[in-house]
Amino acid sequence: MAPAPSLEHVLEKLDAGLPQALDRLLEFLRIPSISTDPAFAPDVRRAAEWLCRDLVELGFDASIRDTPGHPMVVAHSQPGSGRKLLFYGHYDVQPVDPLNLWDNPPFEPRLEDTPAGEVIRGRGSSDDKGQLMTFVEACRAWKAVNGELPPGLVLLFEGEEESGSPSLRPFLHDNAAELHADIAAICDTSRYSDGRPAITTQLRGLYGEEITLRAADRDLHSGSFGGLAANPLQILCNAFAGLKDANGRITLPGFYDGVAELPEALRRDWDSLGFDPAEFLGGVGLKDPIGEKGRGGLEMIWSQPTFEINGMSGGYTGEGFKTVLPGEANAKVSFRLVGQQDPDKIQKAFRAYMAGFIPADCEISYKSHGGSPASHMNISDPAFAAAKQALTEEWGRDAAYIGAGGSIPIAGDFQQILKMDTMLIGFAKDDDRIHSPNEKYDVESFAKGARSWARILAALA
Amino acid sequence: MAPAPSLEHVLEKLDAGLPQALDRLLEFLRIPSISTDPAFAPDVRRAAEWLCRDLVELGFDASIRDTPGHPMVVAHSQPGSGRKLLFYGHYDVQPVDPLNLWDNPPFEPRLEDTPAGEVIRGRGSSDDKGQLMTFVEACRAWKAVNGELPPGLVLLFEGEEESGSPSLRPFLHDNAAELHADIAAICDTSRYSDGRPAITTQLRGLYGEEITLRAADRDLHSGSFGGLAANPLQILCNAFAGLKDANGRITLPGFYDGVAELPEALRRDWDSLGFDPAEFLGGVGLKDPIGEKGRGGLEMIWSQPTFEINGMSGGYTGEGFKTVLPGEANAKVSFRLVGQQDPDKIQKAFRAYMAGFIPADCEISYKSHGGSPASHMNISDPAFAAAKQALTEEWGRDAAYIGAGGSIPIAGDFQQILKMDTMLIGFAKDDDRIHSPNEKYDVESFAKGARSWARILAALA
Repeated sequence: MAPAPSLEHVLEKLDAGLPQALDRLLEFLRIPSISTDPAFAPDVRRAAEWLCRDLVELGFDASIRDTPGHPMVVAHSQPGSGRKLLFYGHYDVQPVDPLNLWDNPPFEPRLEDTPAGEVIRGRGSSDDKGQLMTFVEACRAWKAVNGELPPGLVLLFEGEEESGSPSLRPFLHDNAAELHADIAAICDTSRYSDGRPAITTQLRGLYGEEITLRAADRDLHSGSFGGLAANPLQILCNAFAGLKDANGRITLPGFYDGVAELPEALRRDWDSLGFDPAEFLGGVGLKDPIGEKGRGGLEMIWSQPTFEINGMSGGYTGEGFKTVLPGEANAKVSFRLVGQQDPDKIQKAFRAYMAGFIPADCEISYKSHGGSPASHMNISDPAFAAAKQALTEEWGRDAAYIGAGGSIPIAGDFQQILKMDTMLIGFAKDDDRIHSPNEKYDVESFAKGARSWARILAALA
Repeated sequence: MAPAPSLEHVLEKLDAGLPQALDRLLEFLRIPSISTDPAFAPDVRRAAEWLCRDLVELGFDASIRDTPGHPMVVAHSQPGSGRKLLFYGHYDVQPVDPLNLWDNPPFEPRLEDTPAGEVIRGRGSSDDKGQLMTFVEACRAWKAVNGELPPGLVLLFEGEEESGSPSLRPFLHDNAAELHADIAAICDTSRYSDGRPAITTQLRGLYGEEITLRAADRDLHSGSFGGLAANPLQILCNAFAGLKDANGRITLPGFYDGVAELPEALRRDWDSLGFDPAEFLGGVGLKDPIGEKGRGGLEMIWSQPTFEINGMSGGYTGEGFKTVLPGEANAKVSFRLVGQQDPDKIQKAFRAYMAGFIPADCEISYKSHGGSPASHMNISDPAFAAAKQALTEEWGRDAAYIGAGGSIPIAGDFQQILKMDTMLIGFAKDDDRIHSPNEKYDVESFAKGARSWARILAALA
């Protein structure tokens, strides 16, 4: 049996060791581990090696695990008698273009004083090196105080998250027994927009289609053929217009099967966040929410399904005007899915619906993308309540269960392949400029993030 | 008084002089008078000079008239006591790309035997040097037989038709008195598709709009914003879908004001052409005509108005998939107009209709193109019946009054600026490959075209 952890000492250790922890992070950030650009492959590996070496020094049983792409780093602490926790983060980073918009070179990270407090500036500081190191630093302080690591941990660090995670699912399949735990934690999300700590407990799924509609075998002259020849852009418009009713509800038969009303407990948590749709939309130059009347703004983006036209093209789109009657039209469309909506069933319904618009002499073809159901975590698992309480204590503000309108595929992969739910707990802020020039991570996010994990680990112990 | 023309002698003269007439045309075709490419400007002028010299030698009072662009050639025959006729053609030609698809260099024209008869192969042979020379050769034979040119002719040859005719309208305005005649003839169209001679008596007008619909001030993530933020592609689809009813009729209020039912005489002529929509569409890979039930195919493309989406773009349209919620969508749309439809009134109705779809926080902007009403010639002018009879006699087949789905702006310009109707009489064939590699003009089109003009000139004399 490990000695009972002394949480207070761990937190003090974290505070005292913050300068050294920041030094380590800066060293990690100096490695340009851009996963999408093959020219940086050696740097990606160097980042994996840096991380693995740090974990080994800390006492983890850590190793680099090769994949067809960039390697994984897997680390285990000693077994314990309690529940196992899998922690996930990624050590690769986004490209840095356009470089001229950076005030400081992206891989020469530094601490900066800003009116809003001290920040760590550099590519990967928030997404995700800074975030993943909050967990590693919590483990380090734990070890220093307790003489051993928190028991029953599996750490999984990926190097391909910013390039679509091609190796992740096969790796999870091949190593399912080794990686399985009772619950997972991912540190790659943000606090709620007002800065309060949050656990993301549901994510919308996605089903997308690239559509090609072929009518005539060439672009036609609209004078010679207009009035007789089918216009594929018009056909797509007719179909897409009919997909939503006047209230914004999607008209596909059976579409809302498996869409439950929001549970009262979550509605209360979400209401408490004081979300203002007009303010939210104001940030991007809009002000009037679309969609079903009578539903809250967060409900619309977190727990209602959508249909969106993501892209559309056809005919003449260059400078000036050509009276073309296009032979082909293309569209990319997607549905965000919630609850138990089944991507396969919706694909069938959508394609059957579209078929009703396609004249016999035209041809529609599809290329599917996505196809992942929504992820809803089982928040009755006591780990959620324990983590929520720990976050509330650390930040001095009520932590909230929140949703996310987008997908985080890895949370779905953990559910499907490793059969476990995930606590999505991150400390980033909406203004961290991830994926953009001048990415930063607040020193407060980093310091209190590490303290948060220490509290969560103690609560779960 | 000129001596009474002896038509039989003129036709014999044309037949006997065909080899020399073809030599002249080949010489004219060797001048690469590509008007869109500034590198060919000296060649365009050389073609004007070649044509002007030929007309002067023939006895015309001909001159080159400079414009801000390429020059016009204007020629007058001696005045007569009868009605004046303005003849129009253009001596510029289309570019020749892709050059590698030509079996023979485009400006080394030659006579070729083909299974369908002898053809003149080369750029401009059909569009429009070969066609305009049919009229010049008719005048030459007339002069040889009668000792003087047909009286009361004005010839106008343009060098910018293939590059949008930027100088034409100002030139017509500035020289309206000189150019005015009782009726015009343009030789720049085709015979009906089955080869029978035809006079085009009505052309659809055009009104077009480039539309920019701005919603958010950037492309959004469809996960974060989908369900709350307006999607400009969806809005355009909704609007365009609503523009046509289930029967294909356009729903704009007042849209059909000024659209008359087809006169019985024209309906009979058109019915006699034996147009088969399925065969027509079969040529471009389609088979099922769209549009109003109960209307004939030619009626739909010649005398019914249309709405077409000529181009549309927005969001992510590259390879693969991005779950973008676009900030902007663009469309180019146009209406083909008939009868007395007023482009300005339709523009107002269209913009008012669109406004009903645009949320208060989005912004739509327009750039108008076209805006020309339909041209309907007054076929009760006896010149039409005389020309139709002359064509019937020359070709041994009933000539037909036909329509055209597209616009020929110059016919509208003649109506608006010179206040005269135009007989659109051309001898080209649908397989002449104008604007494409290996353009040709049938020797039969050229020879019988010249004979047709001789007959028409005699009938109008």
